[in-house]
Amino acid sequence: MNNLPRKSAGVETLPTSASLGRILARDIVSQVDVPPFARAAMDGYAVIAEDTYGASTTAPVFLQMMGSIQMGPAPSVCVHRVEAVSVVTGGQMPEGANAVVMVEYTKERGDRTVEVSGEVHPGENVSRLGEDVRKGTVVVKKGSRILPQDIGMLTYLGLGEVAVMRKLRVAVVSTGSELYDGMRLIAGKIPDVNRPMLIGALQELGCEPLDLGTVSDDFDQIRSRLEQGIQVAEMVLVTAGTSVGLGDIVPKVINSLGKPGMLVHGVAMRPSMPTGLAIVDGKPVVSLPGYPVSAYLAFLEFVQPLVSYMLETNFLPRPVVEARLSRRVVGILGSRTYVRVQVSESSEGCVAEPVRTSGAGILSSLVQANGFIIIPENVEGYEEGQLVEVELFRPLEHGQVAE
Amino acid sequence: MNNLPRKSAGVETLPTSASLGRILARDIVSQVDVPPFARAAMDGYAVIAEDTYGASTTAPVFLQMMGSIQMGPAPSVCVHRVEAVSVVTGGQMPEGANAVVMVEYTKERGDRTVEVSGEVHPGENVSRLGEDVRKGTVVVKKGSRILPQDIGMLTYLGLGEVAVMRKLRVAVVSTGSELYDGMRLIAGKIPDVNRPMLIGALQELGCEPLDLGTVSDDFDQIRSRLEQGIQVAEMVLVTAGTSVGLGDIVPKVINSLGKPGMLVHGVAMRPSMPTGLAIVDGKPVVSLPGYPVSAYLAFLEFVQPLVSYMLETNFLPRPVVEARLSRRVVGILGSRTYVRVQVSESSEGCVAEPVRTSGAGILSSLVQANGFIIIPENVEGYEEGQLVEVELFRPLEHGQVAE
Repeated sequence: MNNLPRKSAGVETLPTSASLGRILARDIVSQVDVPPFARAAMDGYAVIAEDTYGASTTAPVFLQMMGSIQMGPAPSVCVHRVEAVSVVTGGQMPEGANAVVMVEYTKERGDRTVEVSGEVHPGENVSRLGEDVRKGTVVVKKGSRILPQDIGMLTYLGLGEVAVMRKLRVAVVSTGSELYDGMRLIAGKIPDVNRPMLIGALQELGCEPLDLGTVSDDFDQIRSRLEQGIQVAEMVLVTAGTSVGLGDIVPKVINSLGKPGMLVHGVAMRPSMPTGLAIVDGKPVVSLPGYPVSAYLAFLEFVQPLVSYMLETNFLPRPVVEARLSRRVVGILGSRTYVRVQVSESSEGCVAEPVRTSGAGILSSLVQANGFIIIPENVEGYEEGQLVEVELFRPLEHGQVAE
Repeated sequence: MNNLPRKSAGVETLPTSASLGRILARDIVSQVDVPPFARAAMDGYAVIAEDTYGASTTAPVFLQMMGSIQMGPAPSVCVHRVEAVSVVTGGQMPEGANAVVMVEYTKERGDRTVEVSGEVHPGENVSRLGEDVRKGTVVVKKGSRILPQDIGMLTYLGLGEVAVMRKLRVAVVSTGSELYDGMRLIAGKIPDVNRPMLIGALQELGCEPLDLGTVSDDFDQIRSRLEQGIQVAEMVLVTAGTSVGLGDIVPKVINSLGKPGMLVHGVAMRPSMPTGLAIVDGKPVVSLPGYPVSAYLAFLEFVQPLVSYMLETNFLPRPVVEARLSRRVVGILGSRTYVRVQVSESSEGCVAEPVRTSGAGILSSLVQANGFIIIPENVEGYEEGQLVEVELFRPLEHGQVAE
């Protein structure tokens, strides 16, 4: 994939609070040390550690109480030998002190002395300057998806704005004279399932889908719709129009739009075999099969990595579970075969039940499944009872702990 | 958790196209058969299978061509013995026919006969009525998170609207006199990291966070803020205010708000030990630790399952990888210990490098990590080189294939 052009949508600056899930466009480099000064890490007394050596409940040491430090301005008080200053967690350490005795090991007495019944070593219960983040270090890397803890970190560093990759605009076109748009069933017509499904899949990846509607199996109509897609988006998805009956109309249209045109047409994957990849005007155009199951699996296998490539990021992998097959499944030698399964948890571990289906036309197979297994090109199939790895897109059935 | 009250936010109806990621409030039961009639599954000729028996390239059979069926209205043509009708994929099967010969095995001749060079059995290349979805069956279950393929299915069934659980409203309050709101660093004050982080974490779970701001360590102020939270939200998260120095101010406030009040205060987990769970007015109030790392891990362990419980759904588990520890880690016997690690892929498999940290005050430990391992209560620790399971919240470092 490294030779593909990568016309990203560019960079935009967002308020940190609105950046969740977006892709960092640049490294976040801290401009400050955190903490910006040595800080008490516990409530207690700032002391010179050496003054506490040997202190215990039976042999406490007594230090002179010199004041107290709250959160807020830099403390004016200073700690000398045999002195102590009361501190709260997060408060700036007074000059001279090098450790904090936890309040549990102290007793304040009436005569402004503090009884210390435990020893501390230098640095104990103190957060050093820059202990968490050193000025100049990369805190979150370019290409990271911004997580809640990153928003926490940006807030911590006082960064109210953040440069992120613009959302990738992806145009979606469905071809097919039999298709109609809309939600009421129309006799003799087929509702366009692919477009709403792919729009959802793109939204899940953080893309901005551009809905270019359905178009009949007509060369010129498809051509003008794809041209429009290439103009307004960084990537175009087009479904169907690759069957023998239509004489591969979509690949022909794509090749008429510009060089290099179709790079790949037909992949060693079942279902989803008639998937194609083209580049037109430096932008990827993905020709997806018309059957929704094929379109969806091809989306996972080809469009998702392409989005990741163009945004220069990696997605978190899907969760995988090991499960025993409840019955034999066969692949197609030379092709990677995707078998939809329903995995459930039992006392003997997970069991994967292949969803019975007569082909990629059966959308319910994808909806009933909670995951899929992949039979590699060089494997004939897997036996009943064999342990297989299932990639999950839904939680397990039964007994799945809610976490 | 089964005894906890479950005041959900109720149900709302959304356009299917706006329902991605929401939780289904009711089973989706199909009101129709899909397909609504037997349909050609291939381009070719609708025939009576028995007429093709024995057909091959060397011994083709010849059928009389009776017309063609396009997508659209129900066909008026009928197939009798030794007849064929041209069909396109998805077209309604003509009466009488019980199979489709793929176009590849046919040749149309000038004399309105079709040469068939391959046999088909009854039902071959035909999608039966209701083959994909039977009228009356549950297609997607209550409690499912709506995936792109579900949106496809709803479209397929002509369901333009869907009943989903309302977003759970969760109020977030940070306590601490040292905190300030906003993004510019202020000397001697600490920016409130927890609130923006938790708001992000709630958004990731599909909740509606209600930002109730920061409040000083004052009993009455905290009390009125939490009361407000309980009024406007189904759940309240409050951070800090549980340290010894403050005399456990937050648990005291919570207990003053109503019965049963605090159910749990202190959990066998490191960090995040001072986590508490309360019920007030039938609503959960979660008291999270003040340190951001502790607050975040307690969120994952306690708030996320609670959200899942209240919405009657399960979340997809986090992806897990097996990795070898680059050095020894120790737990705290009797507590579950969460160790942040950075996992990278090498030629010998994954390696987990524990992030060096001096405690839960170190937010960078969570941001630098791409996952964590859990040392159970009864395990002292794991040795260098030991294989451990890492729960990932970011992709692996290096070599991670973009998928």
